[in-house]
Amino acid sequence: MTEITPLLPGTRIGILGGGQLGRMLSLAASQLGMRTHIFCPDENSPAFEVTPHKTVAGYEDVAALRAFASAVDVVTYEFENVPLATAKVIAENVPLHPGPKALEVSQDRLAEKGFLTRAGIAVASYRAVNSRADLDAAIAEIGLPAVLKTTRLGYDGKGQRTIRTPEDAEAAFAALSGVDLVLEGFIAFQKEISVIVVRGADGVVVTYDPAENVHKDHILKTSTLPASISGRAADKARGIAGQIAAELGYVGTMGVEFFLVADGDEPEILVNEIAPRVHNSGHWTQAVCVTDQFENHIRAILGWPLGSTIRLADVVMENLIGEEINATAGRSVTGVQPHVYGKTEARPGRKMGHLNIVKVPKP
Amino acid sequence: MTEITPLLPGTRIGILGGGQLGRMLSLAASQLGMRTHIFCPDENSPAFEVTPHKTVAGYEDVAALRAFASAVDVVTYEFENVPLATAKVIAENVPLHPGPKALEVSQDRLAEKGFLTRAGIAVASYRAVNSRADLDAAIAEIGLPAVLKTTRLGYDGKGQRTIRTPEDAEAAFAALSGVDLVLEGFIAFQKEISVIVVRGADGVVVTYDPAENVHKDHILKTSTLPASISGRAADKARGIAGQIAAELGYVGTMGVEFFLVADGDEPEILVNEIAPRVHNSGHWTQAVCVTDQFENHIRAILGWPLGSTIRLADVVMENLIGEEINATAGRSVTGVQPHVYGKTEARPGRKMGHLNIVKVPKP
Repeated sequence: MTEITPLLPGTRIGILGGGQLGRMLSLAASQLGMRTHIFCPDENSPAFEVTPHKTVAGYEDVAALRAFASAVDVVTYEFENVPLATAKVIAENVPLHPGPKALEVSQDRLAEKGFLTRAGIAVASYRAVNSRADLDAAIAEIGLPAVLKTTRLGYDGKGQRTIRTPEDAEAAFAALSGVDLVLEGFIAFQKEISVIVVRGADGVVVTYDPAENVHKDHILKTSTLPASISGRAADKARGIAGQIAAELGYVGTMGVEFFLVADGDEPEILVNEIAPRVHNSGHWTQAVCVTDQFENHIRAILGWPLGSTIRLADVVMENLIGEEINATAGRSVTGVQPHVYGKTEARPGRKMGHLNIVKVPKP
Repeated sequence: MTEITPLLPGTRIGILGGGQLGRMLSLAASQLGMRTHIFCPDENSPAFEVTPHKTVAGYEDVAALRAFASAVDVVTYEFENVPLATAKVIAENVPLHPGPKALEVSQDRLAEKGFLTRAGIAVASYRAVNSRADLDAAIAEIGLPAVLKTTRLGYDGKGQRTIRTPEDAEAAFAALSGVDLVLEGFIAFQKEISVIVVRGADGVVVTYDPAENVHKDHILKTSTLPASISGRAADKARGIAGQIAAELGYVGTMGVEFFLVADGDEPEILVNEIAPRVHNSGHWTQAVCVTDQFENHIRAILGWPLGSTIRLADVVMENLIGEEINATAGRSVTGVQPHVYGKTEARPGRKMGHLNIVKVPKP
């Protein structure tokens, strides 16, 4: 345990990225008496509505990054695809949490799987694919079905193709080639679960209860607590998430997504993906935890002790995608806590808000 | 029940007052996807740090008030001493919630007690005092000890003097005279409790569990949930709070402070004061209710259905006064949710933040 001097209220926190995660991080920071400054290229960023301090500039604009860094006391980010060069410019001028290592690992599927494998953590079988011949060889080794993915910049199902028969290989390769690819064995999982883990600047690690996630059109639709999994599976997932945060020397909140392949006395769990940031599947913590994932992220980067992750009630988080946002105001169901991101345009597939639907006890 | 068209996300909410209550109202509005605009004369207002939209002007500046009203869709306020002339200018230009009636009643102790008495709600005995002779007559009728108070602009123990013996009368009158006064019978209460009540635009009324309040140097120090009172007393207090909100045709969150004189099968409860705004003794709702008093206030003024007031855990709210704020960051007690208001100067007696100390269940 390192001795840490916590940053005091009034600290200026810079946030790279002005989407809903940056917005909710800013709200959490304000609760703790901090001031926030949002850096985002998009002048209509939702996070710009919750602080008077902003920089509208590109992530490659070194002068703007330096000015931003000099205007704040500590910097964090809302998305894992912050360019490493950007992170470097920031880190040369002001503390950056989480550090560049988590970005390096999570920005590249091959680097991520290599890191996890070296740490003894199980992942789906995978092979790097740099050519059509590589793909055939990988299919021969891994078998079908399998999923061909770009190693970088994939999210919400973008940048991937499922290969079910050998005949699919050609089209999948044609659709994605030109960048580094990876073929991953298709996992016949029972459930998708995720764990939100937070590591403090002092090395203390806390985890929240695992969420059971359901995706629709490759976008997270619901996270349900408790997950209908065994206590052993939950403990194992929490343990792996904690191990990852520790191995990375991570500071802040991280989401770890898992495939539960088999439950029971010896549960089989594979890590699907890690996200070095607050995570959509942890939004339920806002409604039923004393300290939610956003506040705990801010606590971590300030060097504060972490808060309680105990869940006070059962809850379902439901994402509101595209036009679904428009019904929010009318919902009168007791126990629903809505979060609306303030995006101006409700485009199809766009995350516009979420509902935390809490099972409140009878009065 | 009136049919209400709820205002949609993106609505611009104007808030009169830039202190901690305005700040926390703004944060709650942002959660719901609204935009806020703070009006406050003090350019260092804490609420200015949580929105890009502000007006720095006096409450008598009619031109500034009109410009503010035209820049927003609905207006609310964080303090009951909004001048009625100010409220009128706003209400002529844009919907104002709560309406002027609640302000009129709560700004004047005599008006408030008259209103409550007419509604059949018990208050301490009281007499208007406009002269030294009035005071002697009032003492003769009410008895001693009694408390002499200014009818207007009193808060946190300011503007009042306790009269214990007839000899105290002279000094008390000299200290306060020059404005309208009221003499109130001294209540030998068992406990001070309060109820946060919210009335929606549709007339639906909800209340939160009564808090048991302890004051120190006339400033609220702690609110404890549950209050150690009987279920009958709790029901009675909730009922009275609901009645007050209904009688006022109120829209929004209101705090009602009570003296519990006697508990038991026939509890005796007097209303001490009503505050037509979110209330310090309701801050605990942030940590243990799905919908806290701030969100429910915003829901009400938007015409949204109100949210759940069920309490998910026991909790103590502790105000951080003056220099007490500086120990916050170091506190590592699990289950504590700190709120820091971002005030630059920690003056003695100034409310700087609060802790919601939650009794979390064992994992």
